[in-house]
Amino acid sequence: MKDPDISVLETQVFAPRTVALIGLSSRGDAPTGRPLKFLRRAGYAGQIHVVNPARETVQGEPSLKSIHDAPEPPEHAYILVGQDRVEQAVQECADAGVRVASILADGFGEAGAEGRARQDRLVDIARSAGMRLLGPNSMGIADLNHSTLITVNAIYQEPDLTPGPVALIAQSGSMMGGLISRAKALGIGYSRTVAVGNECDLGVPELGHMMLADPNTEVIALFLETIRDANGLAGFAAAAHRAGKPIVAYKLGRSTVGQEMAVAHTGALLAEDDVTDAFLREIGIARVTCLDALVEAPMLFRGRKPLDGDAPRIGVVTTTGGGGATVCDRLALEGVEIHAPSKRALEVIRATGLSITAGPMVDLTMAGAGPEFVRPAIEAVAAQEEVDLVLSVSGSSGRSSPERTVPPLVEADTCGKPLACFIVPDALESLNGMIAGGHPVFRSPEACADAIGAFCRWRAPRVSALARLPEDTVPKVLNEGASLRMLGATGVPVPQTVRCRPGDRPDLPFPYPVVAKVLSDEVPHKTDTGGVILNIQNAEELSQATLRIKISVERHHPGVVVDQILIAPMVDCLQEVLIGYRLDPSVGPVVTLAPGGILVGLYDDKAIRCAPIDRATAHEMIGEVKGLAPIRGHRGLPKGDLNALADAVAALSQFASHQPTVLEAEANPVMVLSTGVVAVDALVTLAGEDKI
Amino acid sequence: MKDPDISVLETQVFAPRTVALIGLSSRGDAPTGRPLKFLRRAGYAGQIHVVNPARETVQGEPSLKSIHDAPEPPEHAYILVGQDRVEQAVQECADAGVRVASILADGFGEAGAEGRARQDRLVDIARSAGMRLLGPNSMGIADLNHSTLITVNAIYQEPDLTPGPVALIAQSGSMMGGLISRAKALGIGYSRTVAVGNECDLGVPELGHMMLADPNTEVIALFLETIRDANGLAGFAAAAHRAGKPIVAYKLGRSTVGQEMAVAHTGALLAEDDVTDAFLREIGIARVTCLDALVEAPMLFRGRKPLDGDAPRIGVVTTTGGGGATVCDRLALEGVEIHAPSKRALEVIRATGLSITAGPMVDLTMAGAGPEFVRPAIEAVAAQEEVDLVLSVSGSSGRSSPERTVPPLVEADTCGKPLACFIVPDALESLNGMIAGGHPVFRSPEACADAIGAFCRWRAPRVSALARLPEDTVPKVLNEGASLRMLGATGVPVPQTVRCRPGDRPDLPFPYPVVAKVLSDEVPHKTDTGGVILNIQNAEELSQATLRIKISVERHHPGVVVDQILIAPMVDCLQEVLIGYRLDPSVGPVVTLAPGGILVGLYDDKAIRCAPIDRATAHEMIGEVKGLAPIRGHRGLPKGDLNALADAVAALSQFASHQPTVLEAEANPVMVLSTGVVAVDALVTLAGEDKI
Repeated sequence: MKDPDISVLETQVFAPRTVALIGLSSRGDAPTGRPLKFLRRAGYAGQIHVVNPARETVQGEPSLKSIHDAPEPPEHAYILVGQDRVEQAVQECADAGVRVASILADGFGEAGAEGRARQDRLVDIARSAGMRLLGPNSMGIADLNHSTLITVNAIYQEPDLTPGPVALIAQSGSMMGGLISRAKALGIGYSRTVAVGNECDLGVPELGHMMLADPNTEVIALFLETIRDANGLAGFAAAAHRAGKPIVAYKLGRSTVGQEMAVAHTGALLAEDDVTDAFLREIGIARVTCLDALVEAPMLFRGRKPLDGDAPRIGVVTTTGGGGATVCDRLALEGVEIHAPSKRALEVIRATGLSITAGPMVDLTMAGAGPEFVRPAIEAVAAQEEVDLVLSVSGSSGRSSPERTVPPLVEADTCGKPLACFIVPDALESLNGMIAGGHPVFRSPEACADAIGAFCRWRAPRVSALARLPEDTVPKVLNEGASLRMLGATGVPVPQTVRCRPGDRPDLPFPYPVVAKVLSDEVPHKTDTGGVILNIQNAEELSQATLRIKISVERHHPGVVVDQILIAPMVDCLQEVLIGYRLDPSVGPVVTLAPGGILVGLYDDKAIRCAPIDRATAHEMIGEVKGLAPIRGHRGLPKGDLNALADAVAALSQFASHQPTVLEAEANPVMVLSTGVVAVDALVTLAGEDKI
Repeated sequence: MKDPDISVLETQVFAPRTVALIGLSSRGDAPTGRPLKFLRRAGYAGQIHVVNPARETVQGEPSLKSIHDAPEPPEHAYILVGQDRVEQAVQECADAGVRVASILADGFGEAGAEGRARQDRLVDIARSAGMRLLGPNSMGIADLNHSTLITVNAIYQEPDLTPGPVALIAQSGSMMGGLISRAKALGIGYSRTVAVGNECDLGVPELGHMMLADPNTEVIALFLETIRDANGLAGFAAAAHRAGKPIVAYKLGRSTVGQEMAVAHTGALLAEDDVTDAFLREIGIARVTCLDALVEAPMLFRGRKPLDGDAPRIGVVTTTGGGGATVCDRLALEGVEIHAPSKRALEVIRATGLSITAGPMVDLTMAGAGPEFVRPAIEAVAAQEEVDLVLSVSGSSGRSSPERTVPPLVEADTCGKPLACFIVPDALESLNGMIAGGHPVFRSPEACADAIGAFCRWRAPRVSALARLPEDTVPKVLNEGASLRMLGATGVPVPQTVRCRPGDRPDLPFPYPVVAKVLSDEVPHKTDTGGVILNIQNAEELSQATLRIKISVERHHPGVVVDQILIAPMVDCLQEVLIGYRLDPSVGPVVTLAPGGILVGLYDDKAIRCAPIDRATAHEMIGEVKGLAPIRGHRGLPKGDLNALADAVAALSQFASHQPTVLEAEANPVMVLSTGVVAVDALVTLAGEDKI
């Protein structure tokens, strides 16, 4: 079911009837001279208009003075001129009725305020004319099935590239050649490739929809540096799921340094990596972390749906114990379960005459490397109901005897289950044979385990559109009392509190012991400045404690006057947790659960979901956080009220739908009791006035 | 300075004057027929004796009926017969005066009790005769410089292998071909290779010393499944450090599953992976975790010493921002610091005419991929005093123009600093050129970051011999009182305690509040069974508490009679930690520091060292444990007495030298106070009688 608009657009981008090359260099080997050479050699069947006002002919073909001289408006123009002449070229394309203009030059959105202004002007010109833009800073598109090579990418100088089932969308043009060449070595081809550049108009989501509309594309690979349009990406991922065309992504920025590099490079906003990671999982995109896995994993995902069930299991057949273990060792670190062969499976394999030792892997050893052993072993392992995926690891025979290694694997009946292959030696011939046979292959145990781990974690989209994205406003921090009231109003249990002045002896509606805390918009980090005193036993102690708080906080914050103290009952809890809500500037509303108290931030241990969520999802989150083992009953410790905790997490996440002004809300600590939970401290940040 | 014994032995193993091939198959393409073919083709200059009693000639060469028919005793015999005839062959070799016998057959030490007995008999025969054994289960040795190919490994069928500076020792024979073929593709050669098999006699350490004695070997690569001789390995590593020949190891068993696979495969004892990891670091062996890094990293370590200083920094020059970021993102996760170019370095680079944006990497962009830009940039980055290593990342030109990519890198003056190269596309020609120029190259960003991380963490050996290894005895667990006394005797502060019976009202030499705990050899997990009551305020409460303990523990442990209760003062602490000591069966005495209390075991967060250690090393450990941030003063929290904690860790580690009967000692929790520390619970396990 093609969207008619996308259908027209994808033709204009990837299979246009006419192409204009504006500013084509007369040197065919210069980057800006390449597109004509590429199109001609590929046998592009449409009309090509070369535009170069300085010359009569370019590379032996007639050159137009201006795009206006073209007999009909070109569908797709590639603007190859320098940055200072791009605006004029875009204007001329718009005037001439061009449908899509791709722009090579850099120095726009990624180059400071001036560059952004230049880019905005291009968008304005194009919008007025109904013309679409790819780039700027785009190395172009390629569609080998339509001989459409509107690109400067050096890799397309190679005459022997063949199309395949994978579409590649990359935010880094300079990575494209790397990925395409690595795929070529394995025998993996791309249906279409596009370097999106700055995404001033056409971005990853819309280009993704074009890949879905392409009958030659079965799976999509994304090289991402950032997420510019989270809502669009979620919609694309949902459509991809419906179309049965999986998406595999590699995203830079796992480390803070990497994120900064991606920012410097693309000038985009960035979410923390664990937020991005959760977001991609929630919208149904599988993420790999090894670069080679981005090349190799699509062949594993191709034609597949996410596995049902929580704990996928894989069966392993190897002819080298050490080689099998190099993958399985990593798989175990990824949390993937190796399914040891059943008694029945072992019997079938032993019936071929091999004496197999029991163990998690079926180790045929070098003695069992022949096809007469490998094929029955693969089939016996695949036939087990519990097995979701079969991994085959081959040793030296994969290099020395491709003719004996490949056929038993390709011919084996795997009951429709994926068969992933790792070959220990450098063995391109066998790898090519496996790819030709339709099976995924991996060149390193790390990429192999990475891809299988991503496949096992891959789920259908839970979220296909974000609740909303934040406005660009001045944030306003609420004090603890106001913050707790907002939490209480949304359904998170909060304690009864009383306000008093330092030195007061207020009547309390709850018994001692109590806790006293400074209450001020100007003191966000109360504990660090002596602003909190716990375990106060009576009115006399309370009066002294509130005075001590005043003195300490005022010493730490010169100029601040402490005249309000918040009194609350002491709560003795089983464990402290943190529940956070955030309107992430990149991926929208997210809710977080983590251990609270002094542990906050020490360990990378949290569960994150796109908000809002329901109770069941909140329970999933509780199960994911390692540090909550105590309240889950670890080592016989008393269990916390996990239902109440789940309700509190779900309640806070409702800010996403009900409280559009909340930018951030953090309840920490939330005390988990054996019955109930209570948020005893909170910090809410609201959107204030719009930024000018 | 060669050890004279090693010098003789290494010649007999790797460059013998005479070789016997016992049980050589008449089929030259069968594994057991290969060694003769390999030796002949390589042009082995010594005498070869083929022994096969069933034939007059084998593969066209005369065959002896028995090794006794050889005119002189062969220095090195390779026994290729089946498992059932190995013992006889070893006996005949011993009788004939063979110096070294390598054994191919499996079914020995790795195959249960019977196999172990068979293997022990081989060792006895060889020892009596002063003959050395390699294997069983060994695919043999190769020394391309001496044309000595006493191996069945299929990889040596390839005629175009050339020797290089790396020696390879592998515990998995089936991995050797994989590693050698991957190295070959890059242009990396091996001086010597050996598959150690079961190491019944010659093991990794002694073979390692032979590599050190080889003038053609500059660096040693180890593929390890287990550590069979930790003391020997430490000695070898120390000698390698003295010889300036670094050791790089890949070790299986990072996951528990991987460890079990390695055990099943080799029948050896295994330490927990984090213990192994600490051990390798302490003896000066650099560990990589990507398989390709084991092939590639040795060229980075070759000729290098461990870096001085705690935080090595690397400078990065790239022609592709995305490609550079794929490595730097990983490097940051490894904790390696990227050194942003100084103002001066930037000036030098900009003087070549490029407009470089400031950032952690020097991103020359595609526009700066020419040699006239790359070489000055590499030199400017390398010239910075703060930079310890330069990373060069190349984009598409690395594939399309090796002749422009390689020379500026090879010719650049890096001030003697290592220059590591990653090329984004598949670019074997450039990689080969860089290797030929003496520089390390990497095929994936993950292996590149893995190797650089290992290089930055690499330290000179701190330990060159283990205090001792445990005897095989029946362990005996001490109760808390006895355990605390042992800790106290070694210098770990312990609380004053009083014993009483349940229901007693003893006079206490310390004030209330107190804690009461069951005291019994039969109740190791006191908390889980109601055996501990905290915060007892007076004698009446104490009497009731001790009775409650008796009832609860006896209900949980039918048959146990609780008649002893331990009373100690309540200690209010800043943080609870765990200090552990263990006589590891694989790597000897180790000391561990980790967060204590309910967090124990939830996070993989601990520091480990070979014991004993001094106070400075204990302080290093305190700095490494993330969860100890609170007592280090994190977020303004009150600091703990880190000197007292360091002293306690160092004191417990002294069991290694002073208490040979202690198998394990765990102090948990150790309460860290603002002044002093105190271990309030402990469990010590002693070696009891020897196992029969």
